Amino acid sequence: MAIQKPSIPKGTRDFSPEEVSKRQFIFDTIRHQFQLFGYAPIETPSFENLSTLTGKYGEEGDRLIFKILNSGDYLAKADDAILQEKNSQKLISTISEKALRYDLTVPFARYVVQHQNEITFPFKRYQMQPVWRADRPQKGRFREFYQCDADVVGSDSLLQEVDLISLYDAVFTDLNVPVEIHFNNRKVLSGLAEVADISDKLIDFTVALDKLDKIGEEKVKEEMREKGIPQTSIDILSPLFSMKGDFRSQLASLKAILNTSEIGLKGIEELEFVFAKIEKLGLKSADLVLNLTLARGLDYYTGAIFEVKAKGVQMGSIGGGGRYDDLTGIFGLNGISGVGISFGLDRIYLVLDELNLFPDSVDHSLEVLFINFGEAEAEKAMDLAKELRDNGVRCEVYPESAKMKKQMQYADKKAVKFVAIIGEEELKTGNLTLKNMLTGEQKSIAFDELKNAIP
Amino acid sequence: MAIQKPSIPKGTRDFSPEEVSKRQFIFDTIRHQFQLFGYAPIETPSFENLSTLTGKYGEEGDRLIFKILNSGDYLAKADDAILQEKNSQKLISTISEKALRYDLTVPFARYVVQHQNEITFPFKRYQMQPVWRADRPQKGRFREFYQCDADVVGSDSLLQEVDLISLYDAVFTDLNVPVEIHFNNRKVLSGLAEVADISDKLIDFTVALDKLDKIGEEKVKEEMREKGIPQTSIDILSPLFSMKGDFRSQLASLKAILNTSEIGLKGIEELEFVFAKIEKLGLKSADLVLNLTLARGLDYYTGAIFEVKAKGVQMGSIGGGGRYDDLTGIFGLNGISGVGISFGLDRIYLVLDELNLFPDSVDHSLEVLFINFGEAEAEKAMDLAKELRDNGVRCEVYPESAKMKKQMQYADKKAVKFVAIIGEEELKTGNLTLKNMLTGEQKSIAFDELKNAIP
Repeated sequence: MAIQKPSIPKGTRDFSPEEVSKRQFIFDTIRHQFQLFGYAPIETPSFENLSTLTGKYGEEGDRLIFKILNSGDYLAKADDAILQEKNSQKLISTISEKALRYDLTVPFARYVVQHQNEITFPFKRYQMQPVWRADRPQKGRFREFYQCDADVVGSDSLLQEVDLISLYDAVFTDLNVPVEIHFNNRKVLSGLAEVADISDKLIDFTVALDKLDKIGEEKVKEEMREKGIPQTSIDILSPLFSMKGDFRSQLASLKAILNTSEIGLKGIEELEFVFAKIEKLGLKSADLVLNLTLARGLDYYTGAIFEVKAKGVQMGSIGGGGRYDDLTGIFGLNGISGVGISFGLDRIYLVLDELNLFPDSVDHSLEVLFINFGEAEAEKAMDLAKELRDNGVRCEVYPESAKMKKQMQYADKKAVKFVAIIGEEELKTGNLTLKNMLTGEQKSIAFDELKNAIP
Repeated sequence: MAIQKPSIPKGTRDFSPEEVSKRQFIFDTIRHQFQLFGYAPIETPSFENLSTLTGKYGEEGDRLIFKILNSGDYLAKADDAILQEKNSQKLISTISEKALRYDLTVPFARYVVQHQNEITFPFKRYQMQPVWRADRPQKGRFREFYQCDADVVGSDSLLQEVDLISLYDAVFTDLNVPVEIHFNNRKVLSGLAEVADISDKLIDFTVALDKLDKIGEEKVKEEMREKGIPQTSIDILSPLFSMKGDFRSQLASLKAILNTSEIGLKGIEELEFVFAKIEKLGLKSADLVLNLTLARGLDYYTGAIFEVKAKGVQMGSIGGGGRYDDLTGIFGLNGISGVGISFGLDRIYLVLDELNLFPDSVDHSLEVLFINFGEAEAEKAMDLAKELRDNGVRCEVYPESAKMKKQMQYADKKAVKFVAIIGEEELKTGNLTLKNMLTGEQKSIAFDELKNAIP
């Protein structure tokens, strides 16, 4: 067979031992807090029936779903006309009935409906699994990446929002990442659209408003006019440009604008409730920020909207979420409200790397390498290695009695902390030589003292 | 949109919180020992280039690889003649260039070659990721399942075999599963085929020999004759039927049969070395068993062959592996010998379940539920929940002030250990009522003593 130059598909990644350990540290930290907050883990298959996913992510999303080719003679039932006109889109449903998970939310909705009789509601679940998207790969955007989601379904209590903000705070405190949790409410945005009569321009409006700090009030208004937002609407909403102070005074200004919109006032009430609770409860390290320009997933969320940004780093959002009504309706279970948050693993990784926040304990590399000087020496080394492992020390015996230099190079390259030397002399005396590879210090240690000599 | 009755593709599984926690326990136990033995984690993409996988698993294997349909107008470049004759096999290479991982071994080989300049040899890696096979689903056989592999490449030292046996012993000791580690050597099998001149019948021979305990010597010989193995060959190999005693005496009998076969004697030498080392080193709980009928992956392994069986349970092998030469040759890197073992997660799960060996600590469900009696009470409860979580206690506040009965039912169904009751009266006195849901015992505890009251 011809020899192939190995490579991997674009948009995918190999992870080295160091990278896996660092990613595992983030997963473990998030998982630990998910569990403390009472979220329980589920896992769903990597591929779902294509029909489960199709139509849930819009037309663009449908295109980006990876479809799996049916096994066997998949063309047998294909329509001749479709084949002849090479109609790729029409052929799909004939030759593919499965597709890779595109996100964790739709499979979760499917899970809830399918297992509704085994589930106790409110159902709090977390899920940390990869998803796949046939997006054009670019810096920081991959075709395979992990999502880490916590959602609760079957409760419309705003205490869930309070809990999820506390959860974000707890995780990023554990990770030592200073963050702002941006918070908004879809109902407020609906209210603004209502009073200003710009329901069709709301996104243009919020996108422009979002630039206020950068380009100033006049330029923001200019952009709004360019986008076709009438001056009368801008005038109605202009108090938004000068909202200042704590959440109470900001919400007071907002209330003045929205006083004729029932849904808008409901949104303010919800924001007030959550802010007041968080104020009383306190956050460990995060800042909770009212951000009226936050409109992610506008067509999806119906209440709270969250987004997390790391402070002091240029790095988009590292988490997000919100409340949605009727997630499970598409699968036949109506009236189940839900709210959830997501952690952006890849970006959190980049933030920790950039801020040098990965703790030393992440390193799971070898602690002790026993140099191999021959059969009898290696036998003793294996005995001691077994004892060390029983004491939780990561260690190994070099597999061959290669030249000392080669074995020490191996220790160097693997950044081993200690090298244990048992030669002929050491075998006789019952003392080994332990070299600290960081300081270069060497000391002689009795065999049965070794397990106490490794910190 | 029409409402769909939700389901998942056949051969795949949803995992409930309890199942995920139990699986996580097995993963954690294996991972812990992998690390103690100096194996480092890598991860590879879920899909590889189809050309990386094709031709590596035989014709049957190629059929069972899940192919991913190219995105976009995948039929554009398809050959008209192939479409017209509906030739599914010939069309594949045009419409699919990626495929789901079929095992962890080929991606590992690809990884080693691709990253050979970053890797320090001998390279000891572990990998725990799902694989996918379009096999016909049946009891215990799934289309998506995890593999947990540890391999070392770039060393032909038999100390690796010794280490891997010790690793199996350490993991199954930690899991409390009594096991036999069956051990054989491909070179011995080659030697037997050589001296008995039955190279083409070796598998028939070992399959029949494997039934010795069940059906007795005469019936085994009968089966061999039926399979076309000549009587002269059976006579030459007949000492195998009466091999008894410890590994030393068994290997002595074997040596008498193989004394004209160079490769056979080499195999015996390797077996002797490993058995002697393990005898000196000792195993914690596993039994190491010489099993000359062990021939798994005969066309693949070149030296040691391992297989693990749980004692006292009917459950095929729960682990296996062996030494292979030239794993990476297909990708252009020759002369790299490797040896590795694999853990069968799904079967290990079934064994632990059947023998009731999952420890209580696997349960990550809620420890404390705070009953919600209204706004002021819930606020206090959230305060205390925060404090408990800081002390590592998994807890939550019921999200609504629903009827007491409903909240207690929720606690029951979720098997919560303690229910904390803070009503109007408790708010006044500063003492809450803590109910142990297992014993039914209730006691009154000062708010600031709660964190010490949860074991």
